Amino acid sequence: MNTTPTSDTIPQNQNKQTTLLKKARDGVSFNIFDMSCVIYGGAHVVRKRRAAFERVETITGTRDTSKLPRSYGNMNREEAYEEGLEWGKAAFEDGINYKHDYFDSITPRYALANANPFGLTMSMFVPTIAFQGTAEQKAKWIPLCESGKINGAYCQTELGHGTFVRGIETTATWDSETDEFVIHSPTLSSTKFWPGAIGFSCTHAVVVARLIVCSKDYGAHLFMVQFRSLEDGTPMPGIELGDVGLKMSYNGTCNGFATFNNVRIPRTDMLMGNSSVSRDGSYQQSPHAKLSYATLVIARTTIIRAVGFQLAQAVTITTRYSTVREQGLGPNGLSSSEMSLMTYKSQHFRILTLIAKAYAILFASWVCDAEYKEFRGKQDKGDHSTLGYTHNMIAGLKAWCTQTAADGAEDARKCCGGQGYLTISGLPEIVAAVTATATFEGENYVLEQQLGRYLFKCIDNLKASKPIDHRLSYLVDGYAFTENGLVMDKDSSCGAQGTEFLQPEVQLSVYRHRALRLILAAYIAVRLSPKGPMKAWNENMMSIVAAARAHTEYVVLLSFMSQVGNAPPSTSSAIKTALTRICSLFALSTIINPQSNNAISFIEDGYLSLAQLNTIRSLVNDLLTELLPDAVGLTDAWDFTDASLCSALGMMDGNVYETIMHWIRQMPINTNAWNKHKGVFQPGWKQWVEPVLRAKL
Amino acid sequence: MNTTPTSDTIPQNQNKQTTLLKKARDGVSFNIFDMSCVIYGGAHVVRKRRAAFERVETITGTRDTSKLPRSYGNMNREEAYEEGLEWGKAAFEDGINYKHDYFDSITPRYALANANPFGLTMSMFVPTIAFQGTAEQKAKWIPLCESGKINGAYCQTELGHGTFVRGIETTATWDSETDEFVIHSPTLSSTKFWPGAIGFSCTHAVVVARLIVCSKDYGAHLFMVQFRSLEDGTPMPGIELGDVGLKMSYNGTCNGFATFNNVRIPRTDMLMGNSSVSRDGSYQQSPHAKLSYATLVIARTTIIRAVGFQLAQAVTITTRYSTVREQGLGPNGLSSSEMSLMTYKSQHFRILTLIAKAYAILFASWVCDAEYKEFRGKQDKGDHSTLGYTHNMIAGLKAWCTQTAADGAEDARKCCGGQGYLTISGLPEIVAAVTATATFEGENYVLEQQLGRYLFKCIDNLKASKPIDHRLSYLVDGYAFTENGLVMDKDSSCGAQGTEFLQPEVQLSVYRHRALRLILAAYIAVRLSPKGPMKAWNENMMSIVAAARAHTEYVVLLSFMSQVGNAPPSTSSAIKTALTRICSLFALSTIINPQSNNAISFIEDGYLSLAQLNTIRSLVNDLLTELLPDAVGLTDAWDFTDASLCSALGMMDGNVYETIMHWIRQMPINTNAWNKHKGVFQPGWKQWVEPVLRAKL
Repeated sequence: MNTTPTSDTIPQNQNKQTTLLKKARDGVSFNIFDMSCVIYGGAHVVRKRRAAFERVETITGTRDTSKLPRSYGNMNREEAYEEGLEWGKAAFEDGINYKHDYFDSITPRYALANANPFGLTMSMFVPTIAFQGTAEQKAKWIPLCESGKINGAYCQTELGHGTFVRGIETTATWDSETDEFVIHSPTLSSTKFWPGAIGFSCTHAVVVARLIVCSKDYGAHLFMVQFRSLEDGTPMPGIELGDVGLKMSYNGTCNGFATFNNVRIPRTDMLMGNSSVSRDGSYQQSPHAKLSYATLVIARTTIIRAVGFQLAQAVTITTRYSTVREQGLGPNGLSSSEMSLMTYKSQHFRILTLIAKAYAILFASWVCDAEYKEFRGKQDKGDHSTLGYTHNMIAGLKAWCTQTAADGAEDARKCCGGQGYLTISGLPEIVAAVTATATFEGENYVLEQQLGRYLFKCIDNLKASKPIDHRLSYLVDGYAFTENGLVMDKDSSCGAQGTEFLQPEVQLSVYRHRALRLILAAYIAVRLSPKGPMKAWNENMMSIVAAARAHTEYVVLLSFMSQVGNAPPSTSSAIKTALTRICSLFALSTIINPQSNNAISFIEDGYLSLAQLNTIRSLVNDLLTELLPDAVGLTDAWDFTDASLCSALGMMDGNVYETIMHWIRQMPINTNAWNKHKGVFQPGWKQWVEPVLRAKL
Repeated sequence: MNTTPTSDTIPQNQNKQTTLLKKARDGVSFNIFDMSCVIYGGAHVVRKRRAAFERVETITGTRDTSKLPRSYGNMNREEAYEEGLEWGKAAFEDGINYKHDYFDSITPRYALANANPFGLTMSMFVPTIAFQGTAEQKAKWIPLCESGKINGAYCQTELGHGTFVRGIETTATWDSETDEFVIHSPTLSSTKFWPGAIGFSCTHAVVVARLIVCSKDYGAHLFMVQFRSLEDGTPMPGIELGDVGLKMSYNGTCNGFATFNNVRIPRTDMLMGNSSVSRDGSYQQSPHAKLSYATLVIARTTIIRAVGFQLAQAVTITTRYSTVREQGLGPNGLSSSEMSLMTYKSQHFRILTLIAKAYAILFASWVCDAEYKEFRGKQDKGDHSTLGYTHNMIAGLKAWCTQTAADGAEDARKCCGGQGYLTISGLPEIVAAVTATATFEGENYVLEQQLGRYLFKCIDNLKASKPIDHRLSYLVDGYAFTENGLVMDKDSSCGAQGTEFLQPEVQLSVYRHRALRLILAAYIAVRLSPKGPMKAWNENMMSIVAAARAHTEYVVLLSFMSQVGNAPPSTSSAIKTALTRICSLFALSTIINPQSNNAISFIEDGYLSLAQLNTIRSLVNDLLTELLPDAVGLTDAWDFTDASLCSALGMMDGNVYETIMHWIRQMPINTNAWNKHKGVFQPGWKQWVEPVLRAKL
């Protein structure tokens, strides 16, 4: 009872495919439910989550997976948004009614909360008020959100400005006579563009605008603005609202645009927790205005967690399909019968390294959560000392995790061959959803440079004998400062042999060496350049980005190891063995995976020899062999329901071919033609095909 | 006159964005029209193509780019297909009426011909009949196709079998009494699945089925089958036809499924050019049945050319947008005003290396075309000696070019930040179209292993002192056969310094060394393994794939250089300089690009030192600086019309922000709400939002 994953489609008829998947599942070396408990933090959570999914999927009518999912049939822009509203309402109300936060940051289909037209209220609107509002503002607005009386959004990005927040053009000008702010869009490019839910769903939004008091521009601040009438939903006077149209994904919500034509709000609706304007027009800023970074940090932590789940979704589908899809006569074409895709080494390599990356991102997100919690705890006591480390570490992780998940989900899709191209495979939607995260909430190349800048400052501090965050202590090793900058310990090479490469400390030392070398090389190039800081930065930008990524990859590996090492004492040895193996697979395959980003930097200084690389390749091969029987278990453990995967290729029961045909036969383009027009697509045939056949060409 | 690219939207009002793009265009170092002539093979072709695009875009009403393109508004599955029929008819008829083949392999939106419901007739159906039909069959069917009297398709892939053609399950059983073949689908997995145009558009198809004569199974053969009545379009008796539903792209055609319930065709409708069944049931196979590979070779050559154009489309949009998008205060955040994205080195690096890859693919496709032509010429004289080389070289290039273009188009999309996520940016559709090519017409990992197998056979031949194709002569160098296999010249290292790395021969030597080393290492590992051929192949699969890719990358570089070297004497020196620079950029950046596949293998044996790599990085930086003013010219030269790019970010005039807002205001979700419901999305608000706001939660 409750020890196997949920299955909404118990196979009625066994066939070759369902048998293959069952057999693979039976061969898993650990208890799958126990691994789900690791992922979700306990049996209690796993069971409560299952119940929540069951309720929401029941309300939305999606548990019966014999029915073609609506969005795969014939849905246009407006219908996609309507479906998003339906799902969004069910998820929002379930969280309130059953007092859980499972759908606060992620939807029941594992998209980020901003894919839900009600989802920004709890994930962005409330946290922003909590961080930036006064006590009175919190007391006024947060209860309204928690009871669903208003639907909030966060309105920052403009047509002309995204990552560069200082460029925001919308103005909030104080009118001393009426004691109001006048919110205005002075240019076309100042049109608010992209914010989730502002098209047609939200009632209120926190708007980022330049504060202007007595002609002085104080830069970007936050203002509470009512967008729509609570009576009938019409836009408030002076506010134009609309949808930005179809996107690659997230079409269940109405990312929108907004323009303001001299819209007036009371002065007291500026969020004044950290900076304020008083009745006489005097401006005050809190010494800790950087508290505002907290919103970014929490948003990015949420993204990191979400993309781990999205990569896991994609690879769950791929693992199941690869297990049941038989193709070709084995690796060398010499087998007497067709063999499962899972027989082929390239498939092991791709799938298992992707599984390892999903776990790596999951564990990195836990470290982010813990970091964020500690950081907030300190801030509440007035200690802001870890802001730099926390903010920059999470910026780097956001960039690395989102790029890794986006590339990985697409590779998982390609692993399914042509069938992964079908919308009903579920993979195109997952790939499209996850790739959004690489460009929103801070463009990745910008974030990596920001982390690079922070790391350089740490070296500056070391040089000046000032302290740096203790978690960056590895930056101290292996070089010395000289008159011209610093000298690196160039002769260092890795001394490990054979299975020593399976030791965590050896693996860490490889990552640490690379990161340190790249950071120092970029630092020297920038700091010693005679060309001035701007040119020097620009010329070395790719090296700075590479250094920041290498540092982040070291942090990811460290997080993975610490979480595996910190497993509760009750964890079974089978689970521990599996986690240790995927951690090693992650560490070693990243060095030799042809698709790894900048793997050249692990070896270009001779730190690892060709013989050592070949040892690593051989160990990776061994790990793949050991982990292969666990692939289905390692993905089942994420406990995705069939309705949440929404994939004809990835059903729990493996009944791929019957599901594909069963769904396709329900498509309106087919049923309309078959039931009404004897199998002819009437409008197309009459208007376009017949005229070609009958033309005299 | 005719010396600047076509522009359908002459900017009425100059603004910051149009001014920035104009300025960039004015700074290009070469005549852009001349570069178009290089790409298309002469001024005559450029002008004729422009006229063809103008006619087709006029007929389809897409030249007026002030109108929101229909597919970006509110299109569902059926409407997308109808639009595809309209475009398809216009393109097909234009080719026939004006006697050109511009749209035979590619659509006016630069998707492959199989995105056009009429497109397979000339791109697959006719070539298949030409290669596999008898003289009578050619005389009967080809004229019907050329006059549009029938619409043909090619029907091979099944639900259960794609790349592995030998696994095809559909049967064609000879009935000796009636002298007919009975086409039948014996299992669910034998359902024909995926073929383009079979859902609702084609009238006839060449069907791949197992030939069964007197209970003997002769494997896959080709059969002409009428699918639909020419009178009213209804499916022929016993044939069930339908659509596979939405896909990531290609939704303008009806990739379909087909099942056959004992469908009878005359014996003479088997394509009998290479193998035949006579009235008495005797089976004869031509000694040159491998002629059938010709279809694959031509299909893959077409794909290679197409993906070059698709990558060029994506990077054209990105180059224009990056030129006009201003964001941030320069690389180090110290500039006094905002700067264009093109100011940032990471953007130079990404965009210019992608431009270089698009040209690399274009030139590789020319070499494929020439190779194919020569191969066919020889075959017509009964000389099949180059089949192995041609077939395998093109298989490797198909894998490399499609993966490179797919990854590149997605990176180009990400270079546009969040705006690249909008459907109206045109980029999601381009990315989705190009990524299909990585998994169709031969899955890439399978193709690379096939090339690997061929390269191994060449080494076998060398070992046995047998000849190999002269273009593989580099496989002879740098090692010697010994009793245990062979000994590689391990001490080799690259002796080049400084600007010597700009010399083509030096660049080639780096690629050649890597390819040879990887091929030999994989060869030894497989051939000397004690584990038997199947296990040995499987264990070394990733190494075999890496070796094949390295060989192909050498072929790509060689092709690039040979085409740049073979430029006609009339080519201006400015054009030659630009081409030489992008060729060098391609060669050198591939070694040090963090995103390169398996760059580690360039250096893991110590062939290049860290100092040499840093020299290469510095030369790449110099090339980027030299090429930066030409980025707009190098992309303009592909001569894409605004209607074919269909991108609010990538218009010729650079008028990005006005176009975005102009299109978005025309979207039905907005106009319906604004014009009919005072700005409220009525169905959603009433049914889902209001109930949440009014619920007692």
